[in-house]
Amino acid sequence: MAECVAKERKILVAVDEGEESMYALSWCLNNILVSQNSKDTLILLYAKPPRPVYTGIDGTGYMFSPDIMATMDRYTNELAESVMEKAKRLCKEVHLLDVKVETRVVCGDPRDVICQAAEKLGVDLVVLGSHGYGLIKRAFLGSVSNHCAQKAECPVLIVKRPKSIAHDK
Amino acid sequence: MAECVAKERKILVAVDEGEESMYALSWCLNNILVSQNSKDTLILLYAKPPRPVYTGIDGTGYMFSPDIMATMDRYTNELAESVMEKAKRLCKEVHLLDVKVETRVVCGDPRDVICQAAEKLGVDLVVLGSHGYGLIKRAFLGSVSNHCAQKAECPVLIVKRPKSIAHDK
Repeated sequence: MAECVAKERKILVAVDEGEESMYALSWCLNNILVSQNSKDTLILLYAKPPRPVYTGIDGTGYMFSPDIMATMDRYTNELAESVMEKAKRLCKEVHLLDVKVETRVVCGDPRDVICQAAEKLGVDLVVLGSHGYGLIKRAFLGSVSNHCAQKAECPVLIVKRPKSIAHDK
Repeated sequence: MAECVAKERKILVAVDEGEESMYALSWCLNNILVSQNSKDTLILLYAKPPRPVYTGIDGTGYMFSPDIMATMDRYTNELAESVMEKAKRLCKEVHLLDVKVETRVVCGDPRDVICQAAEKLGVDLVVLGSHGYGLIKRAFLGSVSNHCAQKAECPVLIVKRPKSIAHDK
């Protein structure tokens, strides 16, 4: 049997504006990271929706006025920032002194963003909620968790928010 | 954010005769159970293929002679036993003194067996390989891990055997 102990693990948690991804992060912090006596790196990854671009009859891409684009960009950036702040607060609450927390915001379809980041960074585990990916939930068909479980080369942990909690909200 | 620390967790690992499920077990032992200072229960679950039964023209179920059925039963029982022995050896190697190890052999489609056991036993985590389920791999279409990730109410960890290891075999 191959040795698969990772003393300094890289764990990627996909976060978004939904409560489910925060629950997934919390579960990971409390069940996987909390008592490991190792110097793990926790990578919080947020997939930002790409700018909507439509192609006109003459082949040029256009859609919204620069003003609207700027407003949308500001909104998505603020959203990314607020998600990251919330995620980092959760990490602090668990007091994981030895764990390094990194944040990454990448533009694109979360399915690709998560799998590509996992591969590029050589992570040992990907953690994600089973639903969610908020803003772009309807834009990208197919389940992000399904896709990642199939495509990612590393173990994938899919955390479902218990119904009892989901119903409280 | 809801509290999700489980001090005495129940972790169900689906094992079969494939190397991938043993790798999944090993990963779980080394990454989730090993350093938890808690009294976890590890449940090793083996889904045994159901007896093949065909329906004759007169509506009665039949297929093989009693001798062949007995031989098949003996074979599947021996297989289940050998898988469990291998899994228990792996657990012993990791020296998890505080972890209780239980074994369960249940007859049926692994997709149902795993989800039903997870619900019935109230487990905190289901761990399984992304492929496999050996003997009945071809008999049951659809991915076991996909199905469980969608149906199980608890977190599901899908462990893929790294290509580098898979190629060694």
